[in-house]
Amino acid sequence: MITPTVDVLRGAIVESRHRVSVAVTDADGALVAWAGDPGVVTFWRSAAKFFQALPLVVDGGAEALGVTDPELALACASHNGEHRHRELAASLLAKAHCGVDDLACGPHPSLAEGVARAMAERGEKLTRLHSNCSGKHAAMLAQARFRGWRSADYADLGHPVQHRCLEEVARWTGAAEMSIGTGVDGCGVLCFALPIRAMALAYARLGARRLGGEGSEAREAAADRLVRAVTAEPFLIAGTGRFCTELLTTSGGRVVPKVGAEGVYCAALPEAGLGVALKVEDGDFRSSVAALVAVLDQLAPGIASVASEWRSPPVKNTRGQVVGWMEAHVPLRSDGGWRRARRGGMMLRRKMAMRAAGLEGIP
Amino acid sequence: MITPTVDVLRGAIVESRHRVSVAVTDADGALVAWAGDPGVVTFWRSAAKFFQALPLVVDGGAEALGVTDPELALACASHNGEHRHRELAASLLAKAHCGVDDLACGPHPSLAEGVARAMAERGEKLTRLHSNCSGKHAAMLAQARFRGWRSADYADLGHPVQHRCLEEVARWTGAAEMSIGTGVDGCGVLCFALPIRAMALAYARLGARRLGGEGSEAREAAADRLVRAVTAEPFLIAGTGRFCTELLTTSGGRVVPKVGAEGVYCAALPEAGLGVALKVEDGDFRSSVAALVAVLDQLAPGIASVASEWRSPPVKNTRGQVVGWMEAHVPLRSDGGWRRARRGGMMLRRKMAMRAAGLEGIP
Repeated sequence: MITPTVDVLRGAIVESRHRVSVAVTDADGALVAWAGDPGVVTFWRSAAKFFQALPLVVDGGAEALGVTDPELALACASHNGEHRHRELAASLLAKAHCGVDDLACGPHPSLAEGVARAMAERGEKLTRLHSNCSGKHAAMLAQARFRGWRSADYADLGHPVQHRCLEEVARWTGAAEMSIGTGVDGCGVLCFALPIRAMALAYARLGARRLGGEGSEAREAAADRLVRAVTAEPFLIAGTGRFCTELLTTSGGRVVPKVGAEGVYCAALPEAGLGVALKVEDGDFRSSVAALVAVLDQLAPGIASVASEWRSPPVKNTRGQVVGWMEAHVPLRSDGGWRRARRGGMMLRRKMAMRAAGLEGIP
Repeated sequence: MITPTVDVLRGAIVESRHRVSVAVTDADGALVAWAGDPGVVTFWRSAAKFFQALPLVVDGGAEALGVTDPELALACASHNGEHRHRELAASLLAKAHCGVDDLACGPHPSLAEGVARAMAERGEKLTRLHSNCSGKHAAMLAQARFRGWRSADYADLGHPVQHRCLEEVARWTGAAEMSIGTGVDGCGVLCFALPIRAMALAYARLGARRLGGEGSEAREAAADRLVRAVTAEPFLIAGTGRFCTELLTTSGGRVVPKVGAEGVYCAALPEAGLGVALKVEDGDFRSSVAALVAVLDQLAPGIASVASEWRSPPVKNTRGQVVGWMEAHVPLRSDGGWRRARRGGMMLRRKMAMRAAGLEGIP
């Protein structure tokens, strides 16, 4: 059996190697494709943000407080802390009757290297609004406000805001609350350990806006609002020079991706009815992007136009020379289900080609 | 069989995992202990610097140009670019009749985060002297000067300076020149791909100052000079807050360590007559340190006093909270040879305890 890896080549020689596990499910939870160990357990980290933002919409807080779609998109984002991101975080905070000092997330340089450098050169002072999680935190404060919970310790593990997130995560992943491992996230709130297969299911359901079960209508409507919100303005979910934004843009929303920390990447493919979750065993980021591109190439070739720097990131040295590159070898295995899904993708591409050729109406 | 790993825990849950391979040999090339795959091939990177510095001493250039021991230590270093490092790089450059602009290495922020931050806050302009490799490059220019080779393109793969390094690497590793893979290093010069077992052999020989074979006396004397030079002033090989410096200091030279990029770490244990080389499969740095500590704990327990932040590095979030830690599980396997070496280590510790108790002369 081939070990799925993203190899780091220096010249013609593999210098380092990142092992990858992938799970692809449909919205019914069937594992339609995988690589490595689809049952591997890790933390969902920021790829859980859609499900941490849902309670504010599901419970009615978004409507009651007049939260806008762009503000909701920011709640799902790991953003760059660019001007528009901060502006939306601030306006959402205001609706929670809170200020910047109420945010529990710590400031950090922008996740996009170029943006971070530009901010440093401008001497821009980093605030908590700059945190890639400031939208999520502002939404948590809004939820506390709406539900009448104390806001002071909203980030703490025992706070009802956090428990409400856990509850929502359990619903969408199909995992029992008791079976979900917990830890402290990079920004101080609760984070969730799950098999990547369960993460994939949640994304399949999110993309399909189909959860099923009692009281699911409000949740499905809320999921629909979040997916529309991030798709309407792909800049918000990440920002300048970031892969989530590029993939959401160039796929025209046919891929709804979300990065997590430590080598986690998730995506919904709404038209194919699939959810994808992958983990780079060692937590590396760049290889997680290359792995996701390799997975999409197999599941739905041509679904998005991806720059080669993501597909096969160059390795540069301190002189700026390209001395190597990364190469993803992540062949998906399957019991056949994903082939059907892939045929669905081919139908889709044919339809797109026909549309482009002005033949849309012709069967 | 247990896979040797350094686990990254968030709370009680393993979030990510770094796989490790280790080779331990004696100076005759016997594999006395290992973990994972001691035959794994990767680039030696900066852990080859001792062997890239040797030609200048072996060929007579160091003597002819009046190169000092501290300058030689710097040639073996991946230093922080602190004041004393830059001063020595500059004086070595001057002996090569060269200036800063002749260095081919690119500037980069210091390898020690704290040092890099302090330099940035002072507004210190980074020059090529700041490169962690500036000593190596200055020594290469000195070698070119002494041998009468053109200096302009000394870093290029076809230059005799680089070929001379390859020749020296082949001698110490016991690998045929033709079998050594090559690539472009982070600083632009030739770098060498080898099985980690061959790297361990070179370090065992370096520590033992014993190469054997025709014309080995000059090489062994040169090795002795380099080992003495780095041991005399452990600050030079790395600098403030760096593990190589701490290990060399607290072991009193009983461990001569050298970091390479992409998760490579090597060390000589001169008293035990052993060489160690390890590779973190995915190229991670922090786990390579934890793995080396775990290896030393087994080979020669108590040989150095190592701070817990190296043994089991904490994982912090953007709020500065410790949310997890790294844990090395790298059990060495052996055919028995390393146990003998370990007994040697125990004898050594007993001797040290006796010395401390003023009982040195008593058998």
